Amino acid sequence: MKQNYIRPLDLKHGRVDMSHGSGGRAMAQLIDELFAPLLGNDYLAQGNDGSVMPLPDGPGRLVMATDAHVVSPLFFPGGDIGCLSVHGTINDVAVMGAKPLYLSASFILEEGFALADLKRIVESMAAAAKEAGVPVVTGDTKVVEQGKGDGVFISTTGVGWLPAGIELSGNRAAAGDAILVSGPIGDHGMAIMSQRESLAFESPIVSDTAALHGLVADLLASGVQVKVLRDPTRGGLGTTLNEIARQSGVGMMLQEARIPVQPAVAAACEFLGLDPLYCACEGRLIAIVAGEDKDKALAALQAHPQGTGAAIVGSVHEDPHHFVQMTTGFGGKRIVDWLTGEQLPRIC
Amino acid sequence: MKQNYIRPLDLKHGRVDMSHGSGGRAMAQLIDELFAPLLGNDYLAQGNDGSVMPLPDGPGRLVMATDAHVVSPLFFPGGDIGCLSVHGTINDVAVMGAKPLYLSASFILEEGFALADLKRIVESMAAAAKEAGVPVVTGDTKVVEQGKGDGVFISTTGVGWLPAGIELSGNRAAAGDAILVSGPIGDHGMAIMSQRESLAFESPIVSDTAALHGLVADLLASGVQVKVLRDPTRGGLGTTLNEIARQSGVGMMLQEARIPVQPAVAAACEFLGLDPLYCACEGRLIAIVAGEDKDKALAALQAHPQGTGAAIVGSVHEDPHHFVQMTTGFGGKRIVDWLTGEQLPRIC
Repeated sequence: MKQNYIRPLDLKHGRVDMSHGSGGRAMAQLIDELFAPLLGNDYLAQGNDGSVMPLPDGPGRLVMATDAHVVSPLFFPGGDIGCLSVHGTINDVAVMGAKPLYLSASFILEEGFALADLKRIVESMAAAAKEAGVPVVTGDTKVVEQGKGDGVFISTTGVGWLPAGIELSGNRAAAGDAILVSGPIGDHGMAIMSQRESLAFESPIVSDTAALHGLVADLLASGVQVKVLRDPTRGGLGTTLNEIARQSGVGMMLQEARIPVQPAVAAACEFLGLDPLYCACEGRLIAIVAGEDKDKALAALQAHPQGTGAAIVGSVHEDPHHFVQMTTGFGGKRIVDWLTGEQLPRIC
Repeated sequence: MKQNYIRPLDLKHGRVDMSHGSGGRAMAQLIDELFAPLLGNDYLAQGNDGSVMPLPDGPGRLVMATDAHVVSPLFFPGGDIGCLSVHGTINDVAVMGAKPLYLSASFILEEGFALADLKRIVESMAAAAKEAGVPVVTGDTKVVEQGKGDGVFISTTGVGWLPAGIELSGNRAAAGDAILVSGPIGDHGMAIMSQRESLAFESPIVSDTAALHGLVADLLASGVQVKVLRDPTRGGLGTTLNEIARQSGVGMMLQEARIPVQPAVAAACEFLGLDPLYCACEGRLIAIVAGEDKDKALAALQAHPQGTGAAIVGSVHEDPHHFVQMTTGFGGKRIVDWLTGEQLPRIC
């Protein structure tokens, strides 16, 4: 079915032009020679406007999540917009307790964007999807004029399968629950910021971008009473916990000394006047579990390669104001408010 | 759970700023005061990173389709990017023969975009989703700096349910099949172009943007042997038929005199030097059906309010070159090639 085009796409020196979004021959060529071979799977190969996929047997519900990705720069230590867009959406499905099944991807390309960079991004996306076992089954490509976009934006949507009996939601945290994180916070945010600000550290800060569905599956399989899972992306741990406190109508108390932060991230934050509590992670899990299960939950997380740095960082209690507070290293207490304004624009 | 913000969003004179994409308080306010009330449904109200939805009982498969919408201008006669993004994705699911169930929407906003315009767009989106009976169950919002976007881009993804027994695909057309369209072609494309070129016609050209799942359901219920359904968006009827001819490995013969084109669209096309065959529709259906069922298919389409202008426009035959050809009004024949280059950028 593949056409023979007069000349193949120049994936070394070529650039995106408006015709690649026209719906015509140039777009078909971009799909045939770049997207399809890299993302290749049987669903995408159906070549229709939508793809048809099987669902698991037995009772279950559908989970759906979507993200627009506008990260800048497009390439950063530890990843790029391609793998980030796969990980981010898989994680949004996984934190509902669902098994991620399928992804869609829509690209908004800026005229003039280097095809070589697009290829790198799609390769990274394909590798991330393959490693996670979650194929990109359908997609779309649009092109906007130079100056009306910024290289490439990628919107990914994920669907997953939630078996009967699993009920996770931001509104299920209750007094007495424990709050865990699966590893050090802020790595992704500071990897982007250090790249943007051209900061050089002795040990470079690398994004933690990763798909968390394996870690989630292990935690759920451990038999722990899990109430809420969330990945602290934009707004970081501080804002994500405030969202959960609001949804559940509870307060939280964190212990600063227990929150894992890598020394290089702490140093970069101090240098830039940022607070690691609000720095995005793209491969860390927040787990709120029944208080009596906290050690079991910690053990389950630490037993997974992605959770070796896990820690119990706080607890849930009653509070009509739904404040998130933190006992500091100096023995004081402070309120961890929502992120106000924009600490880190275009972090994902 | 809703917060009380210090002052409500100024939906008359306010503008998008970078903090609306931060993940913090300003973004929560944008969701609470603009997106959630307009798109409101129980799934979106779950307020989590992903939403959980039921699926129909019985055997079936999932259909998934995605589109990035970058139409310019954002508002045009007959619609806007909001309803277009709902219709476009519902149609991509519907042409697979599936019942559209749920939509996701991700917004990329440009800093400085008027909140009043965003509200109009989301209102239009909500109205389209409500009319179609397909809720927007989850979403995302990002903001990029002024000059790095163009007002608003919307990526929508749809999932649908394909009951056992329905098999539609672009590769199922066979010699002897008939080709139908559900109404006049090119209205959407020329509505955008006449707006862009500030053309005034006696009777204004109005986009045909509409959700087609009702029309598709009626056609399928009629018992006609349907092989392929497709909505001829970017690239128009000409390119879409070439795609199908390629996928199915067949040739096609169209009869120019039978292809419905509104007089105003024909006049505008002539004025602008465009060919209606390549002008996008956003509410028309191409149906390829078994030849013996063509009259029954025509009757089924014409019985639906969206198909009153339906016509049988051609037939499928064997052709090793997979050419789409057309007998012209003058009795000649010409090849209807793929759209080459970009006739109508950012049409959807």
